[in-house]
Amino acid sequence: MSGNDILERLAAVIETRKPAQGGDPETSYVARLFAKGEDAILKKVGEEATETVMAGKDGDPQKIVYEMADLWFHCLVALANYDLSPADVLNEMARREGMSGLEEFAMRKVKQREAGQI
Amino acid sequence: MSGNDILERLAAVIETRKPAQGGDPETSYVARLFAKGEDAILKKVGEEATETVMAGKDGDPQKIVYEMADLWFHCLVALANYDLSPADVLNEMARREGMSGLEEFAMRKVKQREAGQI
Amino acid sequence: MSGNDILERLAAVIETRKPAQGGDPETSYVARLFAKGEDAILKKVGEEATETVMAGKDGDPQKIVYEMADLWFHCLVALANYDLSPADVLNEMARREGMSGLEEFAMRKVKQREAGQI
Amino acid sequence: MSGNDILERLAAVIETRKPAQGGDPETSYVARLFAKGEDAILKKVGEEATETVMAGKDGDPQKIVYEMADLWFHCLVALANYDLSPADVLNEMARREGMSGLEEFAMRKVKQREAGQI
Repeated sequence: MSGNDILERLAAVIETRKPAQGGDPETSYVARLFAKGEDAILKKVGEEATETVMAGKDGDPQKIVYEMADLWFHCLVALANYDLSPADVLNEMARREGMSGLEEFAMRKVKQREAGQI
Repeated sequence: MSGNDILERLAAVIETRKPAQGGDPETSYVARLFAKGEDAILKKVGEEATETVMAGKDGDPQKIVYEMADLWFHCLVALANYDLSPADVLNEMARREGMSGLEEFAMRKVKQREAGQI
Repeated sequence: MSGNDILERLAAVIETRKPAQGGDPETSYVARLFAKGEDAILKKVGEEATETVMAGKDGDPQKIVYEMADLWFHCLVALANYDLSPADVLNEMARREGMSGLEEFAMRKVKQREAGQI
Repeated sequence: MSGNDILERLAAVIETRKPAQGGDPETSYVARLFAKGEDAILKKVGEEATETVMAGKDGDPQKIVYEMADLWFHCLVALANYDLSPADVLNEMARREGMSGLEEFAMRKVKQREAGQI
């Protein structure tokens, strides 16, 4: 199973947890997040990013993987909240490719910042 | 091209930007991040998460996709910094699956927290 | 000079950096932040919080103090951006006091969460 | 009561919540945080920063004050965790003063970054 399959499949299941799809906050963690609303979801993105950073500082590979899985998972919930899909993000990443293009883009941004333009 | 391919291909290019692989901080944004070191990389993860949250609050789909692409991209750089790959994270996500399993897991965590166990 | 004086005095200077008060983005870092706008200011709050967390993980007292000073400073800029003052935050902290009251409040929140009410 | 008094007084109460001072995790939220340890405390700093950013995006003054009080409060807990005090942070802020000095400092940092030195 490719990574895309995993992300898309998780996204598909997350979709079924929306209140409009009959997601039940009593039995589903994701349905509970949707019921709480946008702020609860976005807060988790910030929270899991902080935990990823702390795992990085610990230099503990297992923990890094674990926390990043949490982060990406809550990113998928956030995407669903705005009716977006992981493919939207992956396509954006592909669009910025071939990598050199991505880097040129980022480097241009850095240099604009250095020139005080942004 | 599947999402997995994109993530893996970006990860492969990021790998070539490591100092030990001859990555040049003068021409490559990623090589520059590696040269600055762990804190600079982790800081970007936190920073892009904050920007994703702000894009969410703006409710601007294009911006959300854009910022999340930035977030995931810097996650790939962080993974590379610890000699990990996106497959490690995707496998962890798959492991927690079939989704219901993932939810049961998250729900168990919520209930443990509620019981004051974690 | 008491802490309050420092926070209030910094807040007063920050106020003079607003564009409407003649703050000049060419010579003042704070005026530059105001000119960039809300997102640039809030992003710094998130960024400095991440740096504080990393300094904490490093267990380096000097770095913790340094990064928290950065965090609080950018909090003052954020407050000014919304025409709020440090006294507003300190009064809210005092209001929740005497401490036991604050803790009871936080504990109540924890227990509500445990009961699934929030 | 000045702001300094509030911060110092809260810090003094927080100090009594440390396990070594007999802080009881069953009755005190702060004692519970200390019992959980550094990661739980730092996580709250990241979490409250995210909530402050979201309150800012909402442009809701009351919420901004409320979330920033939460953020500063957890900063005090973090400081206590490293045997630091709010005075340490306030002194650092004063040290960087008189403001113009602080700005020159920040501006120098910006310009060093622009010159690729940091």
